[in-house]
Amino acid sequence: MYYPEPIAKLIDAFGKLPGIGSKTAARLAFHVLRMDEEDVTNFAKALVNVKRNLQYCTVCCNITDVVPCRICQDKHRDASVICVVQEPKDVIAMERTKEYQGLYHVLHGAISPIEGIGPDEIRMAELLKRLGDEKVQELILATNPNIEGEATAMYLSRLIKPFGIKVTRIAHGLPVGGDLEYADEVTLSKALEGRRELL
Amino acid sequence: MYYPEPIAKLIDAFGKLPGIGSKTAARLAFHVLRMDEEDVTNFAKALVNVKRNLQYCTVCCNITDVVPCRICQDKHRDASVICVVQEPKDVIAMERTKEYQGLYHVLHGAISPIEGIGPDEIRMAELLKRLGDEKVQELILATNPNIEGEATAMYLSRLIKPFGIKVTRIAHGLPVGGDLEYADEVTLSKALEGRRELL
Repeated sequence: MYYPEPIAKLIDAFGKLPGIGSKTAARLAFHVLRMDEEDVTNFAKALVNVKRNLQYCTVCCNITDVVPCRICQDKHRDASVICVVQEPKDVIAMERTKEYQGLYHVLHGAISPIEGIGPDEIRMAELLKRLGDEKVQELILATNPNIEGEATAMYLSRLIKPFGIKVTRIAHGLPVGGDLEYADEVTLSKALEGRRELL
Repeated sequence: MYYPEPIAKLIDAFGKLPGIGSKTAARLAFHVLRMDEEDVTNFAKALVNVKRNLQYCTVCCNITDVVPCRICQDKHRDASVICVVQEPKDVIAMERTKEYQGLYHVLHGAISPIEGIGPDEIRMAELLKRLGDEKVQELILATNPNIEGEATAMYLSRLIKPFGIKVTRIAHGLPVGGDLEYADEVTLSKALEGRRELL
């Protein structure tokens, strides 16, 4: 005999989450055992509700509890700019800057020939449809600064530029608070390439 | 606007678990979003069932889904030895050795004057009752090798020895696979103290 069945099942469920090994899973399961019954019930409800009450926005493909999502509904936002990101959490990251006032489009992935993900596997058709319907003047490509993200940005840029829409890519460079000494050479050369004159 | 409410609640629930910060909580919540509905439902059920179907064994105070627990019920186990541990997971650790054939007693904590935990706050009364009722010949104190665990072992030993029951403490020493160079001096002196003649 090892664990009683109810706790074994919970350890198993925790262990399926990313970055959680068997020891951490056991620690979390035993923590749940000591939690208030109400907190545990709320946790369980939150899990089910995420699957049940969230859907994809029909406009920007972001996850949302209302359709269209609150950002797409917001009349105060600048509908002439669309920021293209890979994942819903990237929208959150952009929103956190409090600088960006335009709309978003969530691709839910990036083009990756190695993993067999082409333009049809991500929400690119929905983006092209928006460009046809809406009065978009600028498309900001904010996909991740890695191979897949760059490939996706390049692909989108070539596809969309002929339509006369301004296509921009977020800047590469040194992160604020970073250290020149520890920057890799690719980042550093990108930072050099993107240098600006001080006014 | 930041996260839609259902996902914010789930992030919040994950964030309450030990060792999980806000970034990990968000990562886990977004992972749940991509999980199969069935897996999520099972996860939620496992959470609720742990609270609903587990209880404390009336004999050894270990968590169990049947009362008395499977170990206490097992006729093949040696009822003359009780191994005293702090937490249910310590029972699992002991069972994993496959060496120990006696019974257990789970204290659910250790004496800690600093945190205001005295003998009455842990399951010590239940242990004393067992010693009166059952034919126990040896009590193995397997509380943790730290201040609280040692204090608890010392307290129990002084309390129980007068009853004529053999009280033993698990050995301190170098962990197998460890390195003498990196052992702290307390462990090393305990290892020296507990040295045995080779036969």
